[in-house]
Amino acid sequence: MRATTIHAAGDIRLEQVPDPVLSTGRDAIVRVVAACVCGSDLWSYRGVRVPKAGSRTGHEFVGVVESVGDDVERVSVGDFVIAPFYDCDMTCVNCANGVSTSCLELSWWGSRDHFGGFADGGQGEFVRVPHADGTLVKTPEYPSEDLIPHLLTLSDVFGTGHHAALSGGVGPGTTVVVIGDGAVGLCAVLASKRLGAERIVLMSRHESRQALGREFGATEVVAERGEAGVDAAKALFDGIGPDAVLECVGTSASMEQAVATVRPGGTVGFVGVPAEGNSVPVQSLFGANVALRGGVAPVRNYIEELLPDVWGGVVQPGRVFDLTLPLADVAEAYAAMDERRAIKVLLQP
Amino acid sequence: MRATTIHAAGDIRLEQVPDPVLSTGRDAIVRVVAACVCGSDLWSYRGVRVPKAGSRTGHEFVGVVESVGDDVERVSVGDFVIAPFYDCDMTCVNCANGVSTSCLELSWWGSRDHFGGFADGGQGEFVRVPHADGTLVKTPEYPSEDLIPHLLTLSDVFGTGHHAALSGGVGPGTTVVVIGDGAVGLCAVLASKRLGAERIVLMSRHESRQALGREFGATEVVAERGEAGVDAAKALFDGIGPDAVLECVGTSASMEQAVATVRPGGTVGFVGVPAEGNSVPVQSLFGANVALRGGVAPVRNYIEELLPDVWGGVVQPGRVFDLTLPLADVAEAYAAMDERRAIKVLLQP
Repeated sequence: MRATTIHAAGDIRLEQVPDPVLSTGRDAIVRVVAACVCGSDLWSYRGVRVPKAGSRTGHEFVGVVESVGDDVERVSVGDFVIAPFYDCDMTCVNCANGVSTSCLELSWWGSRDHFGGFADGGQGEFVRVPHADGTLVKTPEYPSEDLIPHLLTLSDVFGTGHHAALSGGVGPGTTVVVIGDGAVGLCAVLASKRLGAERIVLMSRHESRQALGREFGATEVVAERGEAGVDAAKALFDGIGPDAVLECVGTSASMEQAVATVRPGGTVGFVGVPAEGNSVPVQSLFGANVALRGGVAPVRNYIEELLPDVWGGVVQPGRVFDLTLPLADVAEAYAAMDERRAIKVLLQP
Repeated sequence: MRATTIHAAGDIRLEQVPDPVLSTGRDAIVRVVAACVCGSDLWSYRGVRVPKAGSRTGHEFVGVVESVGDDVERVSVGDFVIAPFYDCDMTCVNCANGVSTSCLELSWWGSRDHFGGFADGGQGEFVRVPHADGTLVKTPEYPSEDLIPHLLTLSDVFGTGHHAALSGGVGPGTTVVVIGDGAVGLCAVLASKRLGAERIVLMSRHESRQALGREFGATEVVAERGEAGVDAAKALFDGIGPDAVLECVGTSASMEQAVATVRPGGTVGFVGVPAEGNSVPVQSLFGANVALRGGVAPVRNYIEELLPDVWGGVVQPGRVFDLTLPLADVAEAYAAMDERRAIKVLLQP
């Protein structure tokens, strides 16, 4: 089959790799119908993390079950399925506690799995899923073409935006500031709206992203950054600050901005993958009782909850995809996101 | 009147100072019946923070209202009252949000108040309370002598332990590890028990503190520290960790231990006054979705809620006082706490 590999910063290729085969009895092979490029894929692409030459890439995909191992019970050949951005069993204590990203048998796409086998990357034609019963969620029926981008966001970005909002304690009547106007930040706006937030301020200086943010539910937009951004955002809340700030970037600067913006007793919900060495001074949290809650989003735990609203068209998170390319053009997909020509690129194998 | 002052590290004196007088109409003067020494008072005493020579000290007191300004409505002359460790209005947005430590008119005992006057320190014979209606809470009637130590803990340590537990999300069935066997840590054990925690592990290597911890509700005690302490505490929870860790110390080491001990998706409730420069690496929170919630405890917001159980003897947080001295011996009170000869010292003017 063909699958995407990275050989060095900026060097993305579509290559011929071995077809996956069933091995453990608990696995399934999925034919990828749609995959995409994540902001976090750009870390290797930009050389911020040095990629191992020839590594498989991609961790978001939806597709059709092609074959299943003997012990698989919850999905069958022909099912349309959504995969979270990791493989998990959904039976261990951490999965039961709602934190499937800390599954005791966790593995990441494109890496060695818990059983000593290999879990393919998501940006390819097929993926072997080690815990088919835990990882995959099937849709009520085969979706229409239109629905596929929206379903694909349950693999990562919509679930991650939802995690930011839940971590920030967003609910009916909450006031929210979202830092980050990438796909995750925009999905955090949409998730906050869906959870009943009263006011949602999006920090963004890009017109197209501002526009989509407003359509997703942002009631205000602030273009300033840094200290000026903090002042402008707080000013919208009588200088006190909002109940929640959702940090969807991951830099020191964005975290500092989040902590400085939220009201006393409020919560920073953070999902931005932290740059190495980022740290938060405890004193900046202590005096005003600012809470910090978040992390790598356990999106598998959210798929069943979010699926009905996505399936029914109540929310359309797939609108974050503003470019669709064939898998053969995967290098261009990375370049378009790297250069911020696209918010998020969908890939069709 | 006589009041306690600090002149340099280790130099605590009881001195003659001006009697407080009513000034704003919103204030009251309280005759102190009982005060005490706080772990945080030791920061200046040890020279970790350089004290301004002659500063008044003490921030925990209960007493009797001696006189009130014309605009005071909620307390009257003769009332027995509890004061939190700060002065606040209880009418501003932050007080209403439950964070009276961020009151827009906040001041600290022994410092300039919001109106440009002076709020006396708690370790003295009298205290002028700038926002009498906001700050003071009267008891149902004049308490018996036995009750006074317990009521005094509502000024700080029991409310702070309660804040640690609430911040850590402690409720019925929760599993908890408490780091810190000082008065606050012990009160965090008691507060966790009161809130319905199922298992409470106290990290302590001092026999008398372990014993009081067990009486307060600790189901297990771990004497190891650092990495060995993390391993021992986690081992009690199948290697996964407890739902909540309550950090009641404030050092880098204790915060690191707390983050390393809690289970994935769990919460560190922190109330230890952070040593300067303490910071938490975001990566240590991100991967396992460890939340950090806490800060300087808004104990004023808790007094009404906690008072009935204290008044009724359901909880006896005043047992943290293991030494009672006359105010004249305040220097010895500091020394006893500094040398860990006493958990907490009560002072009688």
